[in-house]
Amino acid sequence: MKSLRTRRRIRRLAALAAAPIAIGAVAGTQATTAEAAVVQYWIKAENVKWDVAPNGMDVLHDNRPIELSTRQLDAVVYRAYTRGWKKRLPNRAAVGDNDGIPGPLIEARVGDTVLVHFKNEDRVHKSPHSMHFHAFSYKPDSDGAFIPQISGRGGNVPVGKSFTYRLEAGPMSYGTWPYHDHSSTMHESIPQGLYGIVRVYKKKEKKPDRQFSVAFSEHLGFNTINGRAFIGNTPTFQAKVGETVEWNVIAMGELFHTFHTHGHRWRNHAGVPIDNQDLGPGSSFTIRWKEDAPGTWYVHCHVESHQMNGMIGLYKVSR
Amino acid sequence: MKSLRTRRRIRRLAALAAAPIAIGAVAGTQATTAEAAVVQYWIKAENVKWDVAPNGMDVLHDNRPIELSTRQLDAVVYRAYTRGWKKRLPNRAAVGDNDGIPGPLIEARVGDTVLVHFKNEDRVHKSPHSMHFHAFSYKPDSDGAFIPQISGRGGNVPVGKSFTYRLEAGPMSYGTWPYHDHSSTMHESIPQGLYGIVRVYKKKEKKPDRQFSVAFSEHLGFNTINGRAFIGNTPTFQAKVGETVEWNVIAMGELFHTFHTHGHRWRNHAGVPIDNQDLGPGSSFTIRWKEDAPGTWYVHCHVESHQMNGMIGLYKVSR
Amino acid sequence: MKSLRTRRRIRRLAALAAAPIAIGAVAGTQATTAEAAVVQYWIKAENVKWDVAPNGMDVLHDNRPIELSTRQLDAVVYRAYTRGWKKRLPNRAAVGDNDGIPGPLIEARVGDTVLVHFKNEDRVHKSPHSMHFHAFSYKPDSDGAFIPQISGRGGNVPVGKSFTYRLEAGPMSYGTWPYHDHSSTMHESIPQGLYGIVRVYKKKEKKPDRQFSVAFSEHLGFNTINGRAFIGNTPTFQAKVGETVEWNVIAMGELFHTFHTHGHRWRNHAGVPIDNQDLGPGSSFTIRWKEDAPGTWYVHCHVESHQMNGMIGLYKVSR
Repeated sequence: MKSLRTRRRIRRLAALAAAPIAIGAVAGTQATTAEAAVVQYWIKAENVKWDVAPNGMDVLHDNRPIELSTRQLDAVVYRAYTRGWKKRLPNRAAVGDNDGIPGPLIEARVGDTVLVHFKNEDRVHKSPHSMHFHAFSYKPDSDGAFIPQISGRGGNVPVGKSFTYRLEAGPMSYGTWPYHDHSSTMHESIPQGLYGIVRVYKKKEKKPDRQFSVAFSEHLGFNTINGRAFIGNTPTFQAKVGETVEWNVIAMGELFHTFHTHGHRWRNHAGVPIDNQDLGPGSSFTIRWKEDAPGTWYVHCHVESHQMNGMIGLYKVSR
Repeated sequence: MKSLRTRRRIRRLAALAAAPIAIGAVAGTQATTAEAAVVQYWIKAENVKWDVAPNGMDVLHDNRPIELSTRQLDAVVYRAYTRGWKKRLPNRAAVGDNDGIPGPLIEARVGDTVLVHFKNEDRVHKSPHSMHFHAFSYKPDSDGAFIPQISGRGGNVPVGKSFTYRLEAGPMSYGTWPYHDHSSTMHESIPQGLYGIVRVYKKKEKKPDRQFSVAFSEHLGFNTINGRAFIGNTPTFQAKVGETVEWNVIAMGELFHTFHTHGHRWRNHAGVPIDNQDLGPGSSFTIRWKEDAPGTWYVHCHVESHQMNGMIGLYKVSR
Repeated sequence: MKSLRTRRRIRRLAALAAAPIAIGAVAGTQATTAEAAVVQYWIKAENVKWDVAPNGMDVLHDNRPIELSTRQLDAVVYRAYTRGWKKRLPNRAAVGDNDGIPGPLIEARVGDTVLVHFKNEDRVHKSPHSMHFHAFSYKPDSDGAFIPQISGRGGNVPVGKSFTYRLEAGPMSYGTWPYHDHSSTMHESIPQGLYGIVRVYKKKEKKPDRQFSVAFSEHLGFNTINGRAFIGNTPTFQAKVGETVEWNVIAMGELFHTFHTHGHRWRNHAGVPIDNQDLGPGSSFTIRWKEDAPGTWYVHCHVESHQMNGMIGLYKVSR
């Protein structure tokens, strides 16, 4: 007979699965015991041809053409698979999850143990890679950072090899966080696409109706949101009036940015209303609001040249 | 007979008018009903020859000369007018309001409706312009941002034409915020001067004795405070011991800055004492303190090269 | 007979002296009365040959050699002396205090008066220098900032001369703060090493078991922690499980950074868990945690090029 805790857990998982965009419930597989939930992800670093601006233009500036040769990235990205890296999980077109940049959303709840089974299949660059996770507690061998003469196998996984990172979602793990390559080649692989987002929920936190990943970075000299530049290539986020909307924002790479939305404000960590939140590389935050402003709005970085160079998207709110 | 609410409102407006620097009470005209106050601004985008360093030197570095040709900006700025754009409102020399950069301080109180009647009179650059306001709630057609094939007339107002933005100061609108051009030419017009500051007060918030606008940006390669570079050109803010002093700080353009004052500290949003507040483009904050430190103090950005390149002013506190 | 307050004070000072790394108790000399404590520091600006990367290599990148000629700085640094600048205080190898960059940790407690006796012994650059302190309240003549025609002797102390700064640790002074040259030559002397850290404790705040100075800056084109670049040159911080660990972090110079540690999280000012804190030049913060994660961890700036260019160190936690 199942314990009360297990039964509660199962109800919660069922609720997760029913949420409109329960990305993690797709990518991660979960097993529960009376003592703890174990969430497992099977992830490959693998190569994709990545077009930073598939529509080939900057529509904000008289459809200025963006030449194909300047926007094709020999990317290496994280993608989620079924158990044993057998079958790649489908991409969720609505949110772009599992298409490459950023990598699959890693989801957990405080109290969970997360096992990430990582396999390096970077056959193009033939570089060692790793996964380093913010958010979680872990022992040094699951840190995923290459330290000469100190770090173990998980810090620099050779091509064709795998490693399992064991992570604990503790009481200080809730929120939005980045994960990324921290191997000896990270200075090359992060501009090639090897980063993603972690979302850890509090023990009893309800998931929102809509959840949007926003990863600010730069590729091939463009300023990008989720690896794309310019409206029509960057995401067009969608929600309805009355829904609870959540933004999971990270920055990765070289530059400081701001997350700015039109027509909306939210309270910063200290409770003060803002509509423009600064963040540097490696920083991240979660923003939630109850949607009440129908229309088509900009979402962009307020650094003028970043916005002009691609870091701008749309947010469509319908009634 | 006037309702209680109207009478309270009138008392408040009278108090505003009596405040030492009630800039908004000059620039904006207000009408009240028992239900709501409507504040109206009549603003033009118009051309001025703007000297970034009128005294022609960098007094901090042996009066190094700043050549005239390097500091003359063909600016386009926001300036406030009487109803119907008939007569330009006077400049308040003490605070530089309505001289051009930044534009006139837009003031409102939570609960107010603000109507901004904007006319584009940029006869030099002959560019479309707009006004995009942080702080306020509004319908998409008052967003003032040019979105190809989506935004309406307010996103790109041609030369000689006008548009009225309808803005609501809601419960999340209080504080200090930027406003700026968000038309198709904003990448050119913001460096030319087309931005300003909004200040929304809480419903029962008392106005301070002194209110200082601080707009960090860059023009012609100089790092500027309120469009000017180097001591003697940048503002010399003035207050007296015992007065309540308020700083309304924004950054606009390309760069991250810090707002630093000498001889003073304040509590950040979370209540922790600081004397140096980081901010990126589009970010903003309000700082208040009761003045108790007589003397002449620096106000500057702590990025060394910004400070050396003009982003430094004086703050004189008399007994 | 001693008053109750004096006796409490003496007990506190004894506790300070017994703390594992009570740097301030070495550098500063203290006198107490029933009314107030006066802490005195005797500090010189003096020249040292400073090697930014003494081990001559970047161990993270295949031991890439860092040529001697590119890493030798003709530094001018703050160093602490006994009363009357008679004898240089010893360097604390474990924390690098009093070796030069950053200058000696200036410690005080809310309520204290701090007298800093400064002597300019910069015989190499032969430049005037000063000391400007964040954190403290003071009269304008102790501001240490050169203002043409306004500031007094303390703003620009010539070579061979001295000045005493009188500082008050008031109720808004607690926390971690920078101090630095603010003379007419600060744009040269800060890249040459003339900055340090202030730590003011609340009235009854207990000192931590371990206290780590982290000064982010840049020298000779390298991105540095405490004046050094690359692992093995930057500090290797050390602590034990169970100890209370405190990080006193500042940034100085040109660039925005983030303070990131592996394997640990802390609460930001507003109580939200983070592991990466943005900060600009002149900004600073204090982080404390109870250590519970044995291992060797990275401490670094998350701006990728800063990390690659030297701004990375190690943190070793033993059981």
